[in-house]
Amino acid sequence: MKTPLHIVKIGGNVINDPEKLTVFLKDFAALPEQKILVHGGGKRASELNQKLGIPVQMVEGRRITSAKDLEVVVMVYAGLLNKQIVAKLTAEGCPALGLSGADGGSILAVKRKPKPIDFGFVGDVTSVNTELIIHQLSGGLTPVFCALTHDQNGQLLNTNADTIAAQLTIALADYYEVALSYCFEKKGVLRDLKDENSVISSIDRMQYEQLKIENIIHEGMLPKLQNCFDALEKGVTQVRVGTVEMISDKEIIHTQLIL
Amino acid sequence: MKTPLHIVKIGGNVINDPEKLTVFLKDFAALPEQKILVHGGGKRASELNQKLGIPVQMVEGRRITSAKDLEVVVMVYAGLLNKQIVAKLTAEGCPALGLSGADGGSILAVKRKPKPIDFGFVGDVTSVNTELIIHQLSGGLTPVFCALTHDQNGQLLNTNADTIAAQLTIALADYYEVALSYCFEKKGVLRDLKDENSVISSIDRMQYEQLKIENIIHEGMLPKLQNCFDALEKGVTQVRVGTVEMISDKEIIHTQLIL
Repeated sequence: MKTPLHIVKIGGNVINDPEKLTVFLKDFAALPEQKILVHGGGKRASELNQKLGIPVQMVEGRRITSAKDLEVVVMVYAGLLNKQIVAKLTAEGCPALGLSGADGGSILAVKRKPKPIDFGFVGDVTSVNTELIIHQLSGGLTPVFCALTHDQNGQLLNTNADTIAAQLTIALADYYEVALSYCFEKKGVLRDLKDENSVISSIDRMQYEQLKIENIIHEGMLPKLQNCFDALEKGVTQVRVGTVEMISDKEIIHTQLIL
Repeated sequence: MKTPLHIVKIGGNVINDPEKLTVFLKDFAALPEQKILVHGGGKRASELNQKLGIPVQMVEGRRITSAKDLEVVVMVYAGLLNKQIVAKLTAEGCPALGLSGADGGSILAVKRKPKPIDFGFVGDVTSVNTELIIHQLSGGLTPVFCALTHDQNGQLLNTNADTIAAQLTIALADYYEVALSYCFEKKGVLRDLKDENSVISSIDRMQYEQLKIENIIHEGMLPKLQNCFDALEKGVTQVRVGTVEMISDKEIIHTQLIL
């Protein structure tokens, strides 16, 4: 039987709320199983952009990462946020190890082609160094990944944290019994975006296609769910979408993704 | 016989010069022995201070680390500089692992007492987690330490990079045959600060005391040399002070410290 491994992704709603973050990190540290944390931090990066007078450029609602933006995200993701999280987890008795995809060559990516849109220094994951991650987990460490990768030629790349969590999950499914928890500001996938209580408790691939056709799933949710189904198809045991509370409270409402 | 381990500390003169840094990282990556890199980065942090309008406060020629300064150094040391170095080393075939003292609880420190001078969030090293570092080295990884530690209660602390290098050296001397190289802008300890060619080729403890009395050793050099002698007394094999070129060119002029 494979060893259980829990991969948890947290987003801006937790990271930007110090009290919420403290509670979450306590709960996360207390999880008995082996675990990996993946965090974003776009909002804090945008704040630093503003302070430094570096305009945030958007194309079709998506952010462009210029050379200067990349410096900002490296400082905020790998520096400020990652080290604060690591220090707090360590204080909770969880020996956390902060990682970017460049560290130990853990996550390799390729810079996105500049056509049709040049997103700048954005990377699409091509491979995960499972050996490195297994080495850390077997040493009793808890990897904490920020949303950065590298191209093997010395270039750091900005990469979506949801994607990093999904790619780690898929790559490690051969070695562990992996559960993936996507934590965000809502209780789960909502049937009606205006009604917090309209959480759909479980979604399978057929229902997902149907919800897309009916236009019920919000645009921002689509790539997240696509990642979830990709992970399930690669043999991942459990994939859930909901608030951070679902990490410690198994009874709390969330959305379970099933094949 | 113990395995050789080379600990190299680089300072601002290398870090702030992209061409010099690239050459150095190539040489460092090519070292055949197990190795650890320790880097500072104060100048880049001060530049960010300036851009953000956070005044650099000095007392008796030494920098105070306020809460805002700490955010800046965490962003610059653990983020920008550490990840750029890690990405470049990885590109040179050296699987580097960027670490602050908080990662894996690797370097524990205590916040310096606020009297007689309150230096703010500055930490003095109390212990090194050798087990963590040995685990990384034995996994074929090259730790790259930035000048940050933690207090085990979730607080990150700014710590002198020279001291971190010395403390790592001392702690690991029980397990490895450790050589320590302090790289800086000069060819070694100079008999006459104005004469670049007045490098003292070797200094023992007695000569060191004599040079102090004669006021020949520059103030900034004193704690560095103190660290060197502390390391030698703990059984460290070799301690050298000089330019980065001494890493790859054994014949180059430098200062050798001897007991």
